[in-house]
Amino acid sequence: MAVYTDITEQELGAFLRDYDIGDLLSYKGIAEGTENSNFLLHTTMASYILTLYEKRVDRNDLPFFLGLMEHLATRDVTCPLPVKRNDGSLIGDLAGRPAAIITFLEGMWPRRPTAVHCRAVGEALAKLHVAGADFALKRANALSVPGWKTLWDSCHERADEVEKGLVAEVDADFAAISSAWPQDLPAGVIHADLFPDNVFFLGDELSGLIDFYFACNDFFAYDLAICLNAWCFERDHSFNLTKGTAMLAGYQSIRPLQKEEVEALPLLCRGASLRFMLTRLYDWLHGPNGALVQKRDPLEYVRKMRFHRQIASASEYGLESK
Amino acid sequence: MAVYTDITEQELGAFLRDYDIGDLLSYKGIAEGTENSNFLLHTTMASYILTLYEKRVDRNDLPFFLGLMEHLATRDVTCPLPVKRNDGSLIGDLAGRPAAIITFLEGMWPRRPTAVHCRAVGEALAKLHVAGADFALKRANALSVPGWKTLWDSCHERADEVEKGLVAEVDADFAAISSAWPQDLPAGVIHADLFPDNVFFLGDELSGLIDFYFACNDFFAYDLAICLNAWCFERDHSFNLTKGTAMLAGYQSIRPLQKEEVEALPLLCRGASLRFMLTRLYDWLHGPNGALVQKRDPLEYVRKMRFHRQIASASEYGLESK
Repeated sequence: MAVYTDITEQELGAFLRDYDIGDLLSYKGIAEGTENSNFLLHTTMASYILTLYEKRVDRNDLPFFLGLMEHLATRDVTCPLPVKRNDGSLIGDLAGRPAAIITFLEGMWPRRPTAVHCRAVGEALAKLHVAGADFALKRANALSVPGWKTLWDSCHERADEVEKGLVAEVDADFAAISSAWPQDLPAGVIHADLFPDNVFFLGDELSGLIDFYFACNDFFAYDLAICLNAWCFERDHSFNLTKGTAMLAGYQSIRPLQKEEVEALPLLCRGASLRFMLTRLYDWLHGPNGALVQKRDPLEYVRKMRFHRQIASASEYGLESK
Repeated sequence: MAVYTDITEQELGAFLRDYDIGDLLSYKGIAEGTENSNFLLHTTMASYILTLYEKRVDRNDLPFFLGLMEHLATRDVTCPLPVKRNDGSLIGDLAGRPAAIITFLEGMWPRRPTAVHCRAVGEALAKLHVAGADFALKRANALSVPGWKTLWDSCHERADEVEKGLVAEVDADFAAISSAWPQDLPAGVIHADLFPDNVFFLGDELSGLIDFYFACNDFFAYDLAICLNAWCFERDHSFNLTKGTAMLAGYQSIRPLQKEEVEALPLLCRGASLRFMLTRLYDWLHGPNGALVQKRDPLEYVRKMRFHRQIASASEYGLESK
């Protein structure tokens, strides 16, 4: 949850003169998103989300993120639609930061996901993968193996502060995962951060996906591995096979996995665990203290790394043989 | 800014079954209010604010706060209207906390108040004082002289950590203010916390007052003193006479001050400064560290205490002789 930057009505009013979205009625900083400052706007026309991109987001990536939302929203993937400025562009400046306005999606993210949610997320993820096929822009995944290496190098020295023995454990896992990492699986645009707080539901119906600020080009099955980690573990850290089965079936109902993707899935799950463990570890050791940010526990993902290390085949995640 | 408690859709859905406000479309934790958790709800009918009262708010005080809003909203003082539950009550339970729903007020609080805002706030404050006259409930001000004493006792030992010499300075001020504190000025229901973030505007028009959770019975002129402190000082800590003049003229256009109120105003301003200095000092020394709360600087109010100590008459605040 995050509101890093407050803005005055004068600044916002000047910014909104470049949009055709009616008169401003209210704006509230909202406790969503971990990287940027988000405001919920009410205007005489509708509700919108205003995002101020804080320093972790590279301005040069914004055309990819916002263009992708625009692309997907017209292709059966419900997501916020970036609002065009009067000059046709999508990005302005507000309080010294790049800023954009997107439409407001009604819906609620599931604090306690069920198998029904997991199936719907699997379907939506596959639709996203299919719909992204003809998106023109590309963005490399900054948080794949080389990015993990950079993160791990900057945490290596102090990782045992978090748990004794972590340095040796992660060293071994990093070596195993990176040396076996696939080179040529089916790939395209992935969301790369489709956690429950980025998926809205109205009842059991998925009403939309949000927060495309980690989207990039990478293996589709890696995106699925991220979702298995994010949705199918219980609070006691156990893997819920019913949820895994539902998610994988949902995914395959739209885009069947290929044989090599199935075979790679345990390794991709290990990599996905390592990736989120590393960003959490980095924030834990280096992040701002006492700021308006809740730090996430890296050990949750260390446990997932250990779980996936024991997995022999994707059937253990609930993948039904075709 | 505060969201202390997150809630699940299931909890919220169960809570909302006792209201007739349509179907829930979304709820977002918002960064407003310092004492409670606030959510902006969209339903198929309208927008609402859901407040979960955290531990600093006494449940027994809620009928006063919510009843007052209901009372004022029907008497030319624009403020949120508490939404009745199906059984006619105003207070329910959610996530183990007392909780209420109030209507959502459009408008924006002025980050940089002008004299126009100050005049409007003066008028609105006087209307509130007049409209509260026939409100049946009473609530003693827990943050008048005896409450200040309790706060000061709990900070006394460590106050010099904040600024060297503060203990002696506050000891002297506390003695001077408490011994001279008025006994019998015109009194009634006061807001007691009408800072800029509790007053909404649409353009230059005041669109409503919010956050009545410090409201109580006390001297009207003390409420005005709180507002002079909150609205009429610049960021460089100087008093802006134009704003003071505007606020006092606005107030008197609705409710002219009596002679004894005018005479007491400098002392009331000293007391109001001491009161906010003490709560800030308390939070500074005792408040949660690293939580989602921004601590406010007690020294801002020490400076106001010093300013008011030099004031000989209310004319120095901009009070025009009648």
